[in-house]
Amino acid sequence: MLELEASCLTPEPVLKASGHVDKFSDLMVKDAVTGTCYRADHLLRDHLVSLLQDTQSDLTQGQREEIEALRERLDELSQKEMDEMLSMYGAKAPETSNALTPAYPFNLMFATQIGPSGLLPGYLRPETAQGIFVNFKRLLEYMGGKLPFACAQIGLSFRNEISPRAGLLRVREFQQAEIEHFVNAEDKTHPKFGNIRDVKINMYGRSQQMRPPYKPIVTSIGAAVDEGIIANETLGYFIGRTAVLVDKIGMKWEHVRFRQHLEHEMAHYASDCWDLEINCSYGWVECAGLADRSAFDLGNHSEKSGQELTAREVYAEPRHREVLAAIPNKGLLGRTFKKDAQTIMKSLASMEEAELLALQAALASKGKASVIGFEVTKDQITFKVEKRTETGRNYYPSVIEPSFGVGRLLYCLWEHCYYVREGGEGEDGSAIRAVLGLRPSMAPVKCAVLPLSKNALFEDMVKEVGQLLGRAGLINRVDDSGQSIGRRYARADEIGTPFGITVDFKSTEDRTVTVRERDSTKQIRCTIENAVETIRELVAERKTWAQVCDQFGVIEDV
Amino acid sequence: MLELEASCLTPEPVLKASGHVDKFSDLMVKDAVTGTCYRADHLLRDHLVSLLQDTQSDLTQGQREEIEALRERLDELSQKEMDEMLSMYGAKAPETSNALTPAYPFNLMFATQIGPSGLLPGYLRPETAQGIFVNFKRLLEYMGGKLPFACAQIGLSFRNEISPRAGLLRVREFQQAEIEHFVNAEDKTHPKFGNIRDVKINMYGRSQQMRPPYKPIVTSIGAAVDEGIIANETLGYFIGRTAVLVDKIGMKWEHVRFRQHLEHEMAHYASDCWDLEINCSYGWVECAGLADRSAFDLGNHSEKSGQELTAREVYAEPRHREVLAAIPNKGLLGRTFKKDAQTIMKSLASMEEAELLALQAALASKGKASVIGFEVTKDQITFKVEKRTETGRNYYPSVIEPSFGVGRLLYCLWEHCYYVREGGEGEDGSAIRAVLGLRPSMAPVKCAVLPLSKNALFEDMVKEVGQLLGRAGLINRVDDSGQSIGRRYARADEIGTPFGITVDFKSTEDRTVTVRERDSTKQIRCTIENAVETIRELVAERKTWAQVCDQFGVIEDV
Repeated sequence: MLELEASCLTPEPVLKASGHVDKFSDLMVKDAVTGTCYRADHLLRDHLVSLLQDTQSDLTQGQREEIEALRERLDELSQKEMDEMLSMYGAKAPETSNALTPAYPFNLMFATQIGPSGLLPGYLRPETAQGIFVNFKRLLEYMGGKLPFACAQIGLSFRNEISPRAGLLRVREFQQAEIEHFVNAEDKTHPKFGNIRDVKINMYGRSQQMRPPYKPIVTSIGAAVDEGIIANETLGYFIGRTAVLVDKIGMKWEHVRFRQHLEHEMAHYASDCWDLEINCSYGWVECAGLADRSAFDLGNHSEKSGQELTAREVYAEPRHREVLAAIPNKGLLGRTFKKDAQTIMKSLASMEEAELLALQAALASKGKASVIGFEVTKDQITFKVEKRTETGRNYYPSVIEPSFGVGRLLYCLWEHCYYVREGGEGEDGSAIRAVLGLRPSMAPVKCAVLPLSKNALFEDMVKEVGQLLGRAGLINRVDDSGQSIGRRYARADEIGTPFGITVDFKSTEDRTVTVRERDSTKQIRCTIENAVETIRELVAERKTWAQVCDQFGVIEDV
Repeated sequence: MLELEASCLTPEPVLKASGHVDKFSDLMVKDAVTGTCYRADHLLRDHLVSLLQDTQSDLTQGQREEIEALRERLDELSQKEMDEMLSMYGAKAPETSNALTPAYPFNLMFATQIGPSGLLPGYLRPETAQGIFVNFKRLLEYMGGKLPFACAQIGLSFRNEISPRAGLLRVREFQQAEIEHFVNAEDKTHPKFGNIRDVKINMYGRSQQMRPPYKPIVTSIGAAVDEGIIANETLGYFIGRTAVLVDKIGMKWEHVRFRQHLEHEMAHYASDCWDLEINCSYGWVECAGLADRSAFDLGNHSEKSGQELTAREVYAEPRHREVLAAIPNKGLLGRTFKKDAQTIMKSLASMEEAELLALQAALASKGKASVIGFEVTKDQITFKVEKRTETGRNYYPSVIEPSFGVGRLLYCLWEHCYYVREGGEGEDGSAIRAVLGLRPSMAPVKCAVLPLSKNALFEDMVKEVGQLLGRAGLINRVDDSGQSIGRRYARADEIGTPFGITVDFKSTEDRTVTVRERDSTKQIRCTIENAVETIRELVAERKTWAQVCDQFGVIEDV
């Protein structure tokens, strides 16, 4: 897979071609008195919820159902419908109860001026994908002209959210990781599909969303593709890889589902689209989108830029085709039109079949016709059917796009990993301890290094352990703050550090240390060298903690 | 060292406090007719160069020297001086020879609006440093309140250059890598200084820049700090680490120098500043700046935000101090001023020593004085000298900042590594071959995998070699384009790939392959497994190519 880094600052024509300048907006309303801005769909949703929850209200069952139905399709409302609904349900500005202005579209891109002249408007990119599309020709060249290939980009995207909220879930600047996989639309198989064919997912397809019990079903990727629910192998491949990824980093399987976009939800360019949704305290959150964008993007950029962003398919066998051709009588045309004859012949040569047929018909019936403003006669042009041999064709590749929101994934992971346990001495002295149960591979700090107490006797060895861990590529943190060992373990648990090495009095005698694992809180004792090597194996998931306990024996709680 | 990722979008108050809103600008002039913009100092420099090179000109020796001197200080000219010089030397718009507008400052930050209201102006950050300063309190908390500590940030910065040019050297969006090392100004020693004390650098200090032969001298970091040329150990430490880094990645030592800022060049906040300058086809280019920014930044942000960004120094021994205190006669004050007595007593308690002395003197001489508008009398207040015990003090930490421009370093590295060799078959069929002689650690692709020809016999083994390299963490690229092996080697050389594994007929018999090294073009033959392991050792610099040649024996050119 290729990788590139395009710029965040994007000249306006690129985002005009992609449709973002005209369409990338949310409906907004303002408090008519204070001018405070609200996202219209969020405001209306909150208002509908409060209507439903109002115990004093006299809503009929029918009205309740209408409101429920409206809630489900708030993001589909047109500007006009939004105004009607806001007015029908009597929505007001939530803080002041003032009237609201009519809804109007607010473009979510940050605008700026590129260069000193003030004549080059630009935007911060709202997605990284466009930087890959506009560089398609170079990528294709690097691949020797061969498809399929994919290009990834990890980088910042910017959206001027009307109301940022919910921690990392709705922010104005976020890390995006996107892959654009370019493929011939006529063959969307994937050579590595076999690797993920048997991966199981919680599939929330269109039919599950539209029929009781309105719940996802468990299926394998292979079955979903075979049944035509997931549109093709390549899209299925990336859904499978995504399922493997979220499992590997430690998401809880029962809180992960893949939801297919309903027909009316899909972007105008997409032919099939699935969201990776993860359940957290904010509900089901879209953390990735996997879409078959068809040939929309490369086609649009080609049209707007005049640069043909196509790939070439070379036929296994040359193909023969019969085409109509106009044969100019050069001498006659030259004598009649002098220097304009060339222009006329050029126009004839570039005519599409339909135009040629029309010209042929006109000349046959009237004996004369107009070619780019010149009146030509029957004797000046003859027609004949020619055989053409074609060795290949140029086409716009289709694009399969997995697109990840890195911050959203991290936030959901933190929620899935967080737990509390009772007993022991918490950071704040309470009996409840917060633990961030990150898998070792995902924990930013792999090992805490703790002297048993602030005794100077331990200093050298603590330093040595830290260095040995560092040399083994294991990020570690020494905590010699002098607080009780229990409190320091709790502090390490809280930031997700999976292992702790403690240097105690026995260590200074025989170079053995204790190694503690965060979730079991069990400890073993071994030499410093064994401890470092063991943690390296554990982090690389080449060993389990149970195996380590067997190997060295669990020691009594100190 | 800590690391953080702050946002690129920055609210205006932050960059107002840092001085960027008011001062981060370049002087610009426009073509008075067409409106084309030019950076004034660049335009004047080009104009002066053309004056000096004009063989028809009748410049006196004195005039030539004046022009040479002016060229050296173009970036110091004030707006007024710039106008004078442009006019004195008759500078015109270079493309049209039209007159120029007067010079005016153009702020280099990209401005935008944050949020939908249009009331929150913001900028894209012009440097990553400010994101660290405004987060200082959290970082200090993470470090348990202890100094010194450092925090790094790698990320994009944005500068709206008037005339971007020179490839990656002057761009509007660039990757910056900065470290902010926070330290008590009273102790700028560094615990690891010993590690780099003997590192030699080409030092272009102030005295070398101001006296013949105007050339850098070779010195060790230790000597430069001992002699007080480099201001302190911590600054010296980072200069030394920078020197080690550029050497390690493959810069040519003789084209690397550390240039000290002259007194008048230094930013107003800096107390000493050194630029890492690297010589390339564009001349000496600033690729990093290493500055002692003193306490400027934290002080400014504290003042503007009202948040005290200080650290606390705890004294080894408590310190005792005698201070003057005003003792109110509470009963008397209460009876005289009723409810205002509290306010007066509060004011007395918060008075600085100088104010207290003035009050004491006034009461002593006149028997009465004014305290926040109330007339107090001698009998209402007595004075006494009290002993205070202080266990520590709050202070603004100094900041030592190494700041790297990643793109500039890469560009200079490419120039330093690029060479051509004659003989053999070049990519374009010519006899000259371009080689990007990147060290293995810096090469994006570590190994090319080449079937001898397009024979299907080689396919499986080529795939296997690619997989084995991948599993060993070695990025590799299969080139089965079917061109001659020489041409494919040349193509790999051109993008800096240090090694190539070729699968030939012998490979299919005995699972041996040839391994070729880019710069020597020598080849050895060994088993596939040995080849992968050998390349891993070579990339990790645990083995040299000479050792590998000794081990396996060099084979004849195929």
